[in-house]
Amino acid sequence: FKGGPAFEAADGSWSFKVRGRIEADAAFYNKSGGNSPIDFNNGTELRRARIGVDGKVLNDWLYRLEADFAKASRNDSASSEIDVKDAYIAFTGIENTRITVGQHKTPNSLEQLVSSTDLVFTERPLAVEAFNHRLTAGGDFKAGVSVGYTGENYTLTTGLFGANFAASSDSSALGAANDEGWGVHGRGTFAPIQEKGKVLHLGASGYWRDAGGQNGFGGTSVRFRSGPEVSAVDNTRLVDTGNLAADTYTSAGAELGGIYGPFHAQAEYLVASVDQTAGLPSLDFDGGYVQLGYVLTGESRNYKNGLFSRVKPANPFSLKGGGAGAWEIATRFSTIDLNDDALRGGSQDNYTAALNWYPNEYIRVGVDYVRFDAERNGITTEGDAVVSRIGVAW
Amino acid sequence: FKGGPAFEAADGSWSFKVRGRIEADAAFYNKSGGNSPIDFNNGTELRRARIGVDGKVLNDWLYRLEADFAKASRNDSASSEIDVKDAYIAFTGIENTRITVGQHKTPNSLEQLVSSTDLVFTERPLAVEAFNHRLTAGGDFKAGVSVGYTGENYTLTTGLFGANFAASSDSSALGAANDEGWGVHGRGTFAPIQEKGKVLHLGASGYWRDAGGQNGFGGTSVRFRSGPEVSAVDNTRLVDTGNLAADTYTSAGAELGGIYGPFHAQAEYLVASVDQTAGLPSLDFDGGYVQLGYVLTGESRNYKNGLFSRVKPANPFSLKGGGAGAWEIATRFSTIDLNDDALRGGSQDNYTAALNWYPNEYIRVGVDYVRFDAERNGITTEGDAVVSRIGVAW
Amino acid sequence: FKGGPAFEAADGSWSFKVRGRIEADAAFYNKSGGNSPIDFNNGTELRRARIGVDGKVLNDWLYRLEADFAKASRNDSASSEIDVKDAYIAFTGIENTRITVGQHKTPNSLEQLVSSTDLVFTERPLAVEAFNHRLTAGGDFKAGVSVGYTGENYTLTTGLFGANFAASSDSSALGAANDEGWGVHGRGTFAPIQEKGKVLHLGASGYWRDAGGQNGFGGTSVRFRSGPEVSAVDNTRLVDTGNLAADTYTSAGAELGGIYGPFHAQAEYLVASVDQTAGLPSLDFDGGYVQLGYVLTGESRNYKNGLFSRVKPANPFSLKGGGAGAWEIATRFSTIDLNDDALRGGSQDNYTAALNWYPNEYIRVGVDYVRFDAERNGITTEGDAVVSRIGVAW
Repeated sequence: FKGGPAFEAADGSWSFKVRGRIEADAAFYNKSGGNSPIDFNNGTELRRARIGVDGKVLNDWLYRLEADFAKASRNDSASSEIDVKDAYIAFTGIENTRITVGQHKTPNSLEQLVSSTDLVFTERPLAVEAFNHRLTAGGDFKAGVSVGYTGENYTLTTGLFGANFAASSDSSALGAANDEGWGVHGRGTFAPIQEKGKVLHLGASGYWRDAGGQNGFGGTSVRFRSGPEVSAVDNTRLVDTGNLAADTYTSAGAELGGIYGPFHAQAEYLVASVDQTAGLPSLDFDGGYVQLGYVLTGESRNYKNGLFSRVKPANPFSLKGGGAGAWEIATRFSTIDLNDDALRGGSQDNYTAALNWYPNEYIRVGVDYVRFDAERNGITTEGDAVVSRIGVAW
Repeated sequence: FKGGPAFEAADGSWSFKVRGRIEADAAFYNKSGGNSPIDFNNGTELRRARIGVDGKVLNDWLYRLEADFAKASRNDSASSEIDVKDAYIAFTGIENTRITVGQHKTPNSLEQLVSSTDLVFTERPLAVEAFNHRLTAGGDFKAGVSVGYTGENYTLTTGLFGANFAASSDSSALGAANDEGWGVHGRGTFAPIQEKGKVLHLGASGYWRDAGGQNGFGGTSVRFRSGPEVSAVDNTRLVDTGNLAADTYTSAGAELGGIYGPFHAQAEYLVASVDQTAGLPSLDFDGGYVQLGYVLTGESRNYKNGLFSRVKPANPFSLKGGGAGAWEIATRFSTIDLNDDALRGGSQDNYTAALNWYPNEYIRVGVDYVRFDAERNGITTEGDAVVSRIGVAW
Repeated sequence: FKGGPAFEAADGSWSFKVRGRIEADAAFYNKSGGNSPIDFNNGTELRRARIGVDGKVLNDWLYRLEADFAKASRNDSASSEIDVKDAYIAFTGIENTRITVGQHKTPNSLEQLVSSTDLVFTERPLAVEAFNHRLTAGGDFKAGVSVGYTGENYTLTTGLFGANFAASSDSSALGAANDEGWGVHGRGTFAPIQEKGKVLHLGASGYWRDAGGQNGFGGTSVRFRSGPEVSAVDNTRLVDTGNLAADTYTSAGAELGGIYGPFHAQAEYLVASVDQTAGLPSLDFDGGYVQLGYVLTGESRNYKNGLFSRVKPANPFSLKGGGAGAWEIATRFSTIDLNDDALRGGSQDNYTAALNWYPNEYIRVGVDYVRFDAERNGITTEGDAVVSRIGVAW
């Protein structure tokens, strides 16, 4: 039992589990400065609602299929209600090695790879979101093949992945050369210290992508943008490069992370470059974040195979003689710069403070206070927001 | 096992179940009078197709996630194919009390709260549908927080719930004040008699809702409308207020119900008021229904915690020496008046007769004959319809 | 356990299983001739991603609900992301007989009825696809009632099924007579030889359909078309009748199939006729295919109740002292003619060679080489394609 029952054959030859998660948000905004006339919308949002299955069929073969229904929760005129996330088959018959085929996450960015259930803050940092967006950039879930090797204290993963703007390859207009884009992705991690409650993590990842024939479509090859790290209650993105027509584009990032008893820290620096078509100049963008956390109740955050995961409370919460669960505070500074040459995608600095309560290892209740300060093309937006989330994963 | 296997830990600390339901309809219409040129469409409809999971994670915490796929069954150009229904986390660690966070039904109207699998007729009554619609009015599934207390023979539930027209809060146009709407909802029930086969139920519920900034969108704050109680094979709604621009709007209802051996009866009276914007007058609407049923095979309808539920057949149907299942007849009168002041939403009276067969406690086969008589703005529509449904729930 | 755990009561009164499949494709095209300016798109595609449940509730009653999420995998602007496939309730309380109500496959065409997990090639043949398409023609999943009888070595199935263009019946425009279309469908099979590894199969199926009031919608009653049998990476259809306004339309087909040890063969010939409205002439189309396969590792393809199913490897693949799985080669010739009278839907001939690897009975890896040659209205397209697929079913 891990949130839900995990069925397994006595000889380990097969297993099966129905998995899922629910994350419900409420957010309140306050614009405190800047010349932008924007008025953010307060409200609620079903942020994630996922059901999936994963299993093992005959020893060395795993599969996982999971879909997110969150957008289908309330808005009955939306055109994109479902997202399939993982949809892969993996072969694990070679020692320490995993070959994965189908839709799965590209090996890019520590915070992108950490499951949403294990994030310390409600949303991922500006630069991680911008350079690894699933549809508009090069990371997150994509169809492809990857090979991962897990050593004693290091991991190496590389893969070949298909399109982001996949729509463009679905029907072929006469005469248009719009093959699907593709790319090479990779990540390596090394943990010189790796004990329970004491971890030092180093990592690097990157991708190189060919935009395929997708630049035939008015230049929508790639687009970097990011919301203000406050859930999707209000979808406004304060920084946005707009659609860029690219031949190729790349991104790379360096990772640093650590756990020391109840303390944990994490930082990433990311860069992205776009080789524009039609003799336009190359563009370079960058961003990053630093975050610090402390578990008030003394537990340690966890680490395995190059990824951090949530605190497991020592004393699960109960009003009937039980404990208090685990309590955690954290703070993050996040920044991004999408200005280069004549391109004014904007820049933004965010400060976030978070209070998390883990009643047990399946449930998290979090409140974030986010202070954001953005500028784009002379329009400035300063403000703050409070966002709450309750989530369960099984 | 309850339709499907329910897994549970020996110590009761966790449980897990995959739940779902299928309801398949066919309907045939006959317009017998009135000056409306309408020609209803005969046909079939997958009315509900739901898969969900619910479970318990560590004693006091429950969750449920369920989605309806029925609209995705045949029409490949529909833009809204999926509805997420329940998506909540509940805490039950305080005795007799349940705190629910996330998307769940607002505590409004007995017949709205009864599960579709436990309805006696194929569709809910005109006024219940109109005043408690999920998207256009104040009830049904919404994101929020509620607290429910279940006493010996009474229940009290109240909650704070977010938007109906949730779409409007998703992106913030510059300068537009379109915060999500919200409301306070509550219901109380009392059962002075509550034995097996002998129940008297009294109840009242209501909501008060602020339309939020949604009236900034051409006045689509609230809309009351209803189909002719004949499945969704034909989506025509004979009464409809159109979009109303409201500051606030409210609804309230009184409930009466009872079981006496094989007999059962139920009635509700509902009112709704709209406080229009821009100095327009307030509008008042009302409606209700009375229904009577008799189980030919002698079983009693069931009752628990303020809600009625279906008959469980004493002798499940089988051709191999089994019984006949349970057979039930029922009739309903339903009415609604959406005319007030200059607003001509129309009025309608419906008479329905139903024959239900429950081969076992998971399956229901029902045939309804509906006679409808509607008038809206001088256009009258009289007709009747036969609708059949087969449903399974697990 | 059959891919996933199948739960069952000790007395057989109930059962429950979560089922599903994942199929991930990659395809590369090469246009080698013809005067068409088309440039096919290379790329990847999540071809099928299904989760479903099926179960038995109290002895004689079965249900199944299954949805396909594949289109929701990458294209976030698609309007049709989900398809509900099976959504039915079946009664099996009469010996050798199965009564099915709800959405299920019409009994038409051997290769259409074979599950996608059991196909030898990645896509179904041109004529099977064209005349049995779910939305535009008369077969595949539709809402209806069918009765099937399974004898010692024969099967008989007939049913009444509702609409294909179901959209049109959802709302009734004033004055429009657009009832849902419907049809009578049937299939019979006979297997004079039916042993393990030695099968001779004969079959015939057909449908007669009334287009209902759907021809009131600009003549979109029926449409026959087909892609080049290379996955849906590129959706181009080289033959297409366009929308035809029909009063009624019919299709029929003859089936021949056999297994002889590691050899297997299969062929179908199909015809379709459209009785056009408005005095336009009747149209007749036809097509078919022949396929041959050989299992290099010696296993036999399977057969049961009038349908063929995949090879089960004698020695599942494993690098730890296991076997090689099963390996299979196959070739197919497929043809269709959609030209009749003044209607130029085009004609096409395809040759396909396939290599399939079944590491175990749940997983299939296949590579197809397809050579296609199409002509439509003077535009000719010759080319070839390589498509790979990895699939798992549980």
